This record gives sequence, structure tokens and C-alpha cells, in this order.
Amino acid sequence: MSTPPGPADALSVLPVGGIGEIAEGDDLAGLLSAAVELRDGDVLVVTSKVVSKAEGRVRTGSREDLLAGEADRTLATRGRTSIVRTHHGLVLAAAGIDASNTDPGTVLLLPVDPDASARRLREGLAAATGRNVAVLVTDTAGRAWRDGQTDIAVGAAGLQVLHDYSGMQDPHGNELAVTAPAVADELAAAADLVKGKLGRRPAAVARGLAALVLPRGEHGPGATALVRAEAHDMFGLGAREAVLAALRGGDRRGFGVPAPAAEVVSVLSSLGAGDAHVRGDGLVEAELSGDDRAQGRLCARLEAAAFALGWHPAGDAARLLVRFERRTP
Amino acid sequence: MSTPPGPADALSVLPVGGIGEIAEGDDLAGLLSAAVELRDGDVLVVTSKVVSKAEGRVRTGSREDLLAGEADRTLATRGRTSIVRTHHGLVLAAAGIDASNTDPGTVLLLPVDPDASARRLREGLAAATGRNVAVLVTDTAGRAWRDGQTDIAVGAAGLQVLHDYSGMQDPHGNELAVTAPAVADELAAAADLVKGKLGRRPAAVARGLAALVLPRGEHGPGATALVRAEAHDMFGLGAREAVLAALRGGDRRGFGVPAPAAEVVSVLSSLGAGDAHVRGDGLVEAELSGDDRAQGRLCARLEAAAFALGWHPAGDAARLLVRFERRTP
Repeated sequence: MSTPPGPADALSVLPVGGIGEIAEGDDLAGLLSAAVELRDGDVLVVTSKVVSKAEGRVRTGSREDLLAGEADRTLATRGRTSIVRTHHGLVLAAAGIDASNTDPGTVLLLPVDPDASARRLREGLAAATGRNVAVLVTDTAGRAWRDGQTDIAVGAAGLQVLHDYSGMQDPHGNELAVTAPAVADELAAAADLVKGKLGRRPAAVARGLAALVLPRGEHGPGATALVRAEAHDMFGLGAREAVLAALRGGDRRGFGVPAPAAEVVSVLSSLGAGDAHVRGDGLVEAELSGDDRAQGRLCARLEAAAFALGWHPAGDAARLLVRFERRTP
Repeated sequence: MSTPPGPADALSVLPVGGIGEIAEGDDLAGLLSAAVELRDGDVLVVTSKVVSKAEGRVRTGSREDLLAGEADRTLATRGRTSIVRTHHGLVLAAAGIDASNTDPGTVLLLPVDPDASARRLREGLAAATGRNVAVLVTDTAGRAWRDGQTDIAVGAAGLQVLHDYSGMQDPHGNELAVTAPAVADELAAAADLVKGKLGRRPAAVARGLAALVLPRGEHGPGATALVRAEAHDMFGLGAREAVLAALRGGDRRGFGVPAPAAEVVSVLSSLGAGDAHVRGDGLVEAELSGDDRAQGRLCARLEAAAFALGWHPAGDAARLLVRFERRTP
């Protein structure tokens, strides 16, 4: 049983301000290391906004104009709000395109590769100060199910972003069910409490978590390690959008991995299919019944359900039979 | 324009341990106030586990045995994992029923009313110490889209749980798009960094956010204010579960408020309905076409889409027409 580092004895979070308005090409490492005295084992948490500005990610236009270029796909839309998965795998309103703290008529895109930005900044801080400091790049994100926003880590370097308790036991001898606190996101949230949203304190230093800071030269997996693989995400589409996607067919992203055959049989039966079963060749087969109109209705319902479960119609089904095969993910 | 309190000048988070194993009826306020010296404006963050133990919420049995009693409804299930909305409105794996840090064969339910628990503890701390301290009761929650867990506030007393920036402007004169950081959740996350999961440090004190602590006697809205109203939640069901719910009809929770008629018309048209339109009486009407089987297929698809949009079949549609009316939410 490995022994992960324990929690901090005490954590302090200090705001960092006074670095002025950042423009493309500015030396963030130099500005930040001049604004605060860093110590070995500190975590410097910096809002993605200033990283983006230093990297020249300001664009003329509206969020709507620039959305397509930042989006991998849209999870849900309601009125003017679109919840979008970015190319980084982050799920953010308007793909994280920011229209605050920028000149009117311009917006700010996220860094192209926030983990790389964090690594560069970490190396710059080491060069400027000689200190071993971890770096987090953060953005503000809404959540499913809860009101309000919290800051999350979109880039990380030199930090163990997940604190793995797997295999550990509590004092009662139970294996711990919670195996991986998202330490980087919790730190991003803590830093937001002192940074605020008015742009004058774009960074914070978290002190007391040196056990989570990796040795010099080791940058760790980055914040990308906090992105849930789409195959394991149960909420990859809004509820409404999931139904429309299943009725339209085509792109199945957002539904996760295909279900086992037994689950497909159970669902088809529950929707009224007759004699649903797994055939020897692995196809799932079921019977339609009733008059032509009833058969058409049932067939459409079975097809939509199969789509959501990751199966699709197989070959030349006879008029009274439908057959599905597992989609290769 | 109101001026909300600014961010903290510095935040410190101190672990609180040494209160021993908690049993039903224990005086948590007395134990915690003896374990740490509290100051006016502190926020005491305590894991729901010890609050539940003090309130006698230990039960014999497994998580599966006790799930039905804690669940409002199930959002998604994959294998042995169920994502459940509790009676409190919290979305948690296994409804927040905890099988760690309890005697084998027993589990721990969440407090019945964690905001009330927080208020009682706040009053107990005031009586024991004379200090004006806010209280958060926390639990550990997984998230959509991201791996790992973070702590969130499930109960709160005496804290401004959302920091409202609405109407505020950034230094560039843009109205801030992010209007409400979920301060209570960010504090819960910060406290988790020092508490850990091994049960020996069930609480933490956050110092430096006195501006967010309400005056004595004012408990504020509690953590219930962080629960998103189901009507405004786009992710109220897993993608797969949303499709099956639409095909089965019946309970429409998880889909949010009904869509406007114009959106229904647009969706029905995109699915192949003929002449979809809003009638003078507000019903949405569309034509079916093709042979009987094709009509049945189309009809089933239009009905499932309408269900997801919050509309349902209206009265005696003729064979070639389908009509939908808006569901009263």
C-alpha cells in the first residue's frame, strides 16, 4: 500500500496584484516573481485571462463569432446560453471565450494549450527565482446541478492534480470509496476566494501544500488529467439534446460506451418489443407486432433506444423483426 | 450599484483534529470549540460525516439497502454506480450514503436538514465562545465532465454563499458575465485540502473572509441556495436515461421547462414532419406522410421529441395529423 502525502498542516492563500495590464509578449514569469516572494513548494495560481493576454489570444469580435473555432461540440443550448466542450475537453459556457476584462469589441480565447502555458511559466519562475514552484492556470466554470460558478484548473505544471487514495483504508478498516480528490480544482477554487473577479488580482500563491508539488523537472500529467474521458461521462449531452440526437441518429458523442447486449435486450423488452434476445452471432433481435402503423411506431422507438445504448440497426431486418449490432466505439 | 465585499486580503485554512470518534448526542459545538481557538469572522468547515454521527444517522445495512429512502430520483446509472438526486436537491453518487469511516456493516446518511445542522452548530459555537463564526457542512461530490471529486457545501449558516457581482463592471467598463461565484463551495474545496479523507481531521477553520460572514442572528439562505432549480438545469438526466425517459413517457423531471412553440415547430420540421405550425389556439400541429408504417415511425419520433421539449399529444389527432400542447410545468 503506497502512502500518499497527507493533507496540509495549514494552507495559506495570498493574493498577487500590481502586475498591471498584460499585453502580448509580456514576461509573466518576471512580472509575477517581482510581485510576490515565492518559496519552494508554493503553488502559483494564475487566471487564464492574463496568460491568454500574454500569449496574444485577444480577438476582435463577439463570443458568438468565435465560438465555432473553439468548440469541439455543443452539449446543450438554452436561449443565448451554449454549454460547449472545447478542444481541450473543458465544458464551459461559450467555450470559455471571455468578454470581461477586455477592451469593448474584443474577446479573449483560452490559451491554445494551458498545460504547456503552465509548464513555461513554471520554468520561467524557476529561472527568475531559483524556487521550485508549481503552477496552475485557472478559469471560471459553471456546474451541472448547482448554481454559481467555481474556478477550476485548466492548466497545471509540477502539481499532483489528483490525490490518489485508492487502496487506502480509513481508521475503521474500510477501503476508501472516494479515491481521488481533484486537488488542482480545489486549489483553483481556494485561490478564487482571494483573487476576485474585478481583474486587479490575477494570481494567488497557495502555501502549505509542498507535499503535492513535484520535484524540479517533473511537470506531472497536467490539468488534462482532470478531463473525464467522454466514454465514461454519463452527462455528455443535455437531457433535451440527448433525445434529439437519438432521434436524428448520426453523431453519437455524448452517450458514452455502448451497453452490454443483456441491457439492450432488457430495454427493448421494456419498450414493448416481443421476444427480444441475443442471437448466437451476438446480434440483438426482437419482434414487432400490431398493424403496420403500430409496427412503425415500435420500430422507431426501439431504434432510438438502441442508438442511446450504442447499438445500431443491423442489415436486412425482415418486416416483423428488428436487429441491432453493437457499435464499435 | 451595490458594492459587494471584496475578496480576502489573505486566506488561511487550519485543520481541526483531535475531537475523537463522534457518537450520537455528542456536543459538536463544545468539542470543536475546545479543539481550536475561534475568532470573530472565522468560517468553521465541518464534514457532514461527523454531523451525521452526532445526529444519530448511522444505519445498519448497505448503501443499496438504504438508497430508496434518501433518493428523490435517479439521474443516471452505469453498472453499480447510481447518480442520485437526494431529497435535499444534492446530486451525489449513491445519494451521499457513506460507507467509509463507519463500522463495517453500517453506513451513514446525510443530515436530514444540513442547513439546520449548520445553524444549530453556529448557535452552539456562539454560546460556547462568544464569537461570530459562520458554519459550513460539507460532503464530497463527483462532477459531470471532470474526473476526481471536490468537497461542496451541503449546509451553511451565517455565510453569504454566493458572491453576487451582478451589475458590477470590470476596469474596462464591461458588465461582468460571471455574476455569482459559489463562495461556499470554494471554501468547502479549500477546507478539503487540509482535512483529508482519513477521518482524523473532520473540520477546518477558514480565516480571512470575515466580509462574507453575516452578523450574529443572520443565518442567510443556507447551502440550499446553491441547488439549481430543476427547471433551469440542462443536465437533469444522463444522456442515455434522457432518451429512455422520452420513449417511455410519464415522469418528465430532468428536462427543465417546456420550450417555446416556435422551437417545437422547428424541431418537428427537422425530424420530417410536414407543415408544422402553431395554430391560433396555441397548439402545435404537423402532418404525417408516407404509408402506414412510415406514419407510425414518424409519429413516434415526433412524440418523443415533443416530450423532451415539454409538450404532449393533444386530444383526438386525425390519422394524418399530430397535435401537441404545452405541458404546464
